[in-house]
Amino acid sequence: MRVSLIGAGNLATNLAHALLKANHNILAVYSRTMSSASLLANQIGATATDDIMLLHDDADVFIIAVKDDVIADVAAILRQRMPDALIAHTAGTVAMSAIPGSHRGVFYPMQTFSKQRIVDFRNIPLFVEAQEENDLKVLTSLAESLSDSVMHLDDERRKLLHLAAVFCCNFANHCSAIAEKILTDNGIPFDVMLPLINETNAKLNQCAPHDAQTGPAVREDHHVMDAHINLLNGLDMTQFAEIYKILSDSIINLKKNNNHELQDKE
Amino acid sequence: MRVSLIGAGNLATNLAHALLKANHNILAVYSRTMSSASLLANQIGATATDDIMLLHDDADVFIIAVKDDVIADVAAILRQRMPDALIAHTAGTVAMSAIPGSHRGVFYPMQTFSKQRIVDFRNIPLFVEAQEENDLKVLTSLAESLSDSVMHLDDERRKLLHLAAVFCCNFANHCSAIAEKILTDNGIPFDVMLPLINETNAKLNQCAPHDAQTGPAVREDHHVMDAHINLLNGLDMTQFAEIYKILSDSIINLKKNNNHELQDKE
Repeated sequence: MRVSLIGAGNLATNLAHALLKANHNILAVYSRTMSSASLLANQIGATATDDIMLLHDDADVFIIAVKDDVIADVAAILRQRMPDALIAHTAGTVAMSAIPGSHRGVFYPMQTFSKQRIVDFRNIPLFVEAQEENDLKVLTSLAESLSDSVMHLDDERRKLLHLAAVFCCNFANHCSAIAEKILTDNGIPFDVMLPLINETNAKLNQCAPHDAQTGPAVREDHHVMDAHINLLNGLDMTQFAEIYKILSDSIINLKKNNNHELQDKE
Repeated sequence: MRVSLIGAGNLATNLAHALLKANHNILAVYSRTMSSASLLANQIGATATDDIMLLHDDADVFIIAVKDDVIADVAAILRQRMPDALIAHTAGTVAMSAIPGSHRGVFYPMQTFSKQRIVDFRNIPLFVEAQEENDLKVLTSLAESLSDSVMHLDDERRKLLHLAAVFCCNFANHCSAIAEKILTDNGIPFDVMLPLINETNAKLNQCAPHDAQTGPAVREDHHVMDAHINLLNGLDMTQFAEIYKILSDSIINLKKNNNHELQDKE
């Protein structure tokens, strides 16, 4: 297929490489800044532009991969230029209707992307949606050429997935960033945590997160929890202390909640 | 070496198997409940007991692996029975001085343990400490027979490590447990998250957590953050909404903090 990309960030870069690998033809890359557009376009043999009005309507699909809060603006300009083109965005939490016109859809790869690290799309769950049946076929076919895990999903459930992804990925990573701050401020290298982090990850591939939970909170070991909160406050890390408290509370609540559900089933 | 274990839980079970694999002689396993003591003792060919007073002082090291808040009680009873034995506990946040007498130490493997999942100790960082120099040699030698990553670390820095471990492991896992709850309550299986979780983990092995951060908070995409918080409140998941807010705040603060530090260095 012929694809044009609106955006040249982390997602656009990874998507471009996946499309190229699957032998699609990437015609153009748009970015607000010409240097970003060129950087990506040169990697994949596409035309770079920093002016949406210069894009041609010769692509089968226009994929918008820009920051969520500018999707609607970019889509409106693009639609004005090409009333009948199939335009899809890549965001978890933006409604399909942010794109005007009827030839619209969503092409949402659920993964964390960095420009520096090109990932293999084959294992990435890709969620597609379109207003018109034929457009859904086009997007599904494009998605299946990239990934073995393609699903059709509506706006509401895609929003839930994205929300869950923020917890699994962004917030889990931030927990490690807090650990990094605690350690490096005290002269201990973060690397010492990697065996623990890798084992925590390995467990999640074997059993459900609520069953994999360990640590002072799930044991309701208030002695240790109080010591940790005091330690954080002593280090003037008061926001981390607040985070420690609410996450520990939530671990205890989730455990009680699950126990009640088990009892209800018995 | 001849070792006796006080405790038969997740850590004791994994430690027992590692000791056995390294050809140490495990004499006895104590647990409050005879069934737990027997379950582990039978796996490793040791004697089981539920009465500390029945333990013999024929071990080179007694390792206490019980819940943190009963370590001091158990250690006091054990010390009464054997005034000159080397007794070490395995806790991150309990001071060495929780054990009475001078032949005391700490033997802290930084890992998450489950009885159901016996892990390889060779890659697990093991932190040792002892009051007497000769006891430190004994514990270091025992640790080095199990792990390639043995370090001598005092109470204060061990507490920091344990605190950091709670964030990297327990809290990161809880983030996945929250995602699991959001998804399964809405009929979406949690497994769909695994490619994202595994990539998040792979990134942490390649770059520092603060550099690996992605998502709406680090982009300061308030539109998405507000939508997610509304979604959680709409699902009556108000504590998860609070957690979403404070973790997003903290991601933004840490980014600003790191930017300032960079500017200060320039």
